[in-house]
Amino acid sequence: MILAKNPDRKDWDKLTKRPALKQQNLQQLVNEVFQAIREEGDRAVLSYTKIFDRAEVEKLKATPEELAGAGNKISDDLKAAIRLAGANIEKFHRAQTPTVVEVETVPGVKCWQEVRPIERVGIYIPGGTAPLFSTVLMLAIPAQIAGCKDIVLCTPPDKNGQINPAILFAAQFAGVTQVFKVGGIQAIASMTFGTESIPKVNKIFGPGNQYVTAAKQRATQLGVAIDMPAGPSELLVLADETASPEFVVSDLLSQAEHGTDSQVICVVKSASLIPKIQEQLLNQLPSLPRKDIARKAIENSKLILMEDDQDCMDFINDYAPEHFILCVENESFYLNGLMNAGSVFIGNYTPESAGDYASGTNHTLPTNGFAKSFSGVNIDAFCKKITFQKISEEGIRRIGPAIEFMAEAEQLKAHKLAVTKRLLSL
Amino acid sequence: MILAKNPDRKDWDKLTKRPALKQQNLQQLVNEVFQAIREEGDRAVLSYTKIFDRAEVEKLKATPEELAGAGNKISDDLKAAIRLAGANIEKFHRAQTPTVVEVETVPGVKCWQEVRPIERVGIYIPGGTAPLFSTVLMLAIPAQIAGCKDIVLCTPPDKNGQINPAILFAAQFAGVTQVFKVGGIQAIASMTFGTESIPKVNKIFGPGNQYVTAAKQRATQLGVAIDMPAGPSELLVLADETASPEFVVSDLLSQAEHGTDSQVICVVKSASLIPKIQEQLLNQLPSLPRKDIARKAIENSKLILMEDDQDCMDFINDYAPEHFILCVENESFYLNGLMNAGSVFIGNYTPESAGDYASGTNHTLPTNGFAKSFSGVNIDAFCKKITFQKISEEGIRRIGPAIEFMAEAEQLKAHKLAVTKRLLSL
Repeated sequence: MILAKNPDRKDWDKLTKRPALKQQNLQQLVNEVFQAIREEGDRAVLSYTKIFDRAEVEKLKATPEELAGAGNKISDDLKAAIRLAGANIEKFHRAQTPTVVEVETVPGVKCWQEVRPIERVGIYIPGGTAPLFSTVLMLAIPAQIAGCKDIVLCTPPDKNGQINPAILFAAQFAGVTQVFKVGGIQAIASMTFGTESIPKVNKIFGPGNQYVTAAKQRATQLGVAIDMPAGPSELLVLADETASPEFVVSDLLSQAEHGTDSQVICVVKSASLIPKIQEQLLNQLPSLPRKDIARKAIENSKLILMEDDQDCMDFINDYAPEHFILCVENESFYLNGLMNAGSVFIGNYTPESAGDYASGTNHTLPTNGFAKSFSGVNIDAFCKKITFQKISEEGIRRIGPAIEFMAEAEQLKAHKLAVTKRLLSL
Repeated sequence: MILAKNPDRKDWDKLTKRPALKQQNLQQLVNEVFQAIREEGDRAVLSYTKIFDRAEVEKLKATPEELAGAGNKISDDLKAAIRLAGANIEKFHRAQTPTVVEVETVPGVKCWQEVRPIERVGIYIPGGTAPLFSTVLMLAIPAQIAGCKDIVLCTPPDKNGQINPAILFAAQFAGVTQVFKVGGIQAIASMTFGTESIPKVNKIFGPGNQYVTAAKQRATQLGVAIDMPAGPSELLVLADETASPEFVVSDLLSQAEHGTDSQVICVVKSASLIPKIQEQLLNQLPSLPRKDIARKAIENSKLILMEDDQDCMDFINDYAPEHFILCVENESFYLNGLMNAGSVFIGNYTPESAGDYASGTNHTLPTNGFAKSFSGVNIDAFCKKITFQKISEEGIRRIGPAIEFMAEAEQLKAHKLAVTKRLLSL
């Protein structure tokens, strides 16, 4: 880890800076695939699946038999774990359900706000060796609670045209309405336009590689919303002498194993922690199956000594970490001062992996400093709020003249007349 | 208006379709201005202001004297109107303030969600002949309620380097913290990077022409969030024989006067309304100062007879109007079935202009079908929700094994070990 001791504020920029995202130009490829799928639908989808996933797929949609058989292909322990995690995610997200807001702003002017689900949502789950069934839970469970009518899941098939059974099991458990064997740009394009098999959706959620990210950006230009901007995963740990160096390092490594571009920052309040952290790293790293990835991420990560509490707080808010582990004695100081973070893990017994899987909070969170302006996925992400107003004769008498003056001043005469005509009729 | 009588469902696509947005290629100009402002700051801002706004500005920031003097330059009636509208907007948006959500998902696993303001927000207000001071209220009042620390407003100066006094008055009234005399791409670039005078912000709100829209899109690639995708304003009116044709047409014209690209749809439940609407249009249109604009918008707009209630409901949800005026006897049928709309105006005495100015609801709303996935601006737009979790020894005992199984199945061994180490320590 790169070591910094009580760095000067003018050097914080360097420490909080994320690596520039590869802005590789995938535009042309994305446009090509989008156009083909718009024009040729399923035929193009199947052809790209053959090219990009090297898979022959007969039917894009997972069959009832495939879905029903999935549970038998995974262990009972894993099924029980998915059920426990799902129950917790459901409890926490159901509690977030927004309620109607109703105000009579002046007598006769009733304004209210109601919540409606986004009708059709799409969930993208990447393929590869590790099946991200946990992300299925994190996206489909809130969608189901919100009342989304169609919850469509796309994930690339393996070489045999199959979907990982844990993904299929999680999808059924979490209320996904249709599962499709399609990945990459072609999946995002299909959900953007709709094909013979795959429905068009209103909003697309989920992680993905640079191709998927570029395709999601393209989708936003075609009338489809997306969850949030993508970036490599991040963790910032703040530890003092009450923190277990063993646990802290296990969390740093959890983050580091995600990818060589994972962002890991460990801020310690006391110099005595530095050698302990370094020693634990040497102990724990070599035993990991993904040690080569983790080592690379750790090499670029930062171990920072910062002794002043206010400095720590300002630094954390400046960085705006996706995941923030807070393991210090005076935690209330930090909880009160925290402005920018995705999800916060407090104390020695709250590893990041608890939030990744099973505590109940969502693991789809803003990276790359977007925690300054974005929330993680929560129930709001699957809803819209519509405002309503109903004005009585008394109400328009009371606010009508103000509308007339303002419309006149904005030189919008027809806006004014719409009120004048009503006032004159009374 | 283009007339359609009980159109077949297969023709709805044509009726709900928005005109393709001019995707004029402004990328190069936007990139140039962004780069200049990133490199040269205020100097570039002043130079572009001279070129694009033909204005010589000495100080970009509006002075305390300019702000203090604004109130004397507008009428007392307008000031009173702004205060009334502001009070209503404040009441309705304050009532939306989200509260803490707290759940113990299993014993020892506490999860909660808290709300934090976005610290720095930028508001863009276009220049031109009509000063949109109402938009200042709609964006700055919720920002202030949310607790945003910096509320920065940029608006282009006139030829004399001045800002319209109604905008300055509204800005002060609504809690804007700094006002800058800068418009167009250069305003958005300044708030994206920050200059010597103008602060960098986390999120940019507000309407604008195609240059501003393209600049806001560029900002999103540079780590700044924006309010929502832009498109021409829209109104759909649903009327039966209880609706006043005079009022209905006054509302259609309010929408039409915004611009020749305004989208106007009038759905009538009874054939007898058709000639009445047409007659009112002939009566009311010629007296408008912006009649040429309004006439052009009306020519492209649609008058649709649709006698079946369920057809009407499905058509409206398909279109997803920004503004929806509902003036029918059986309004509860529509209120219950409505899924997609920005803001709804109910009954004969609720003109769209009430929501544009003074009822209390927000007028920054999703257009172009985005009401299917986006809310209008509300208090959420100025906040983030952060999740927290604190797990006790008992808690990790209860959920730890589930996390281990799931992490193992996703082949993330370090995630599993972070839990195993904690369980072993107990």
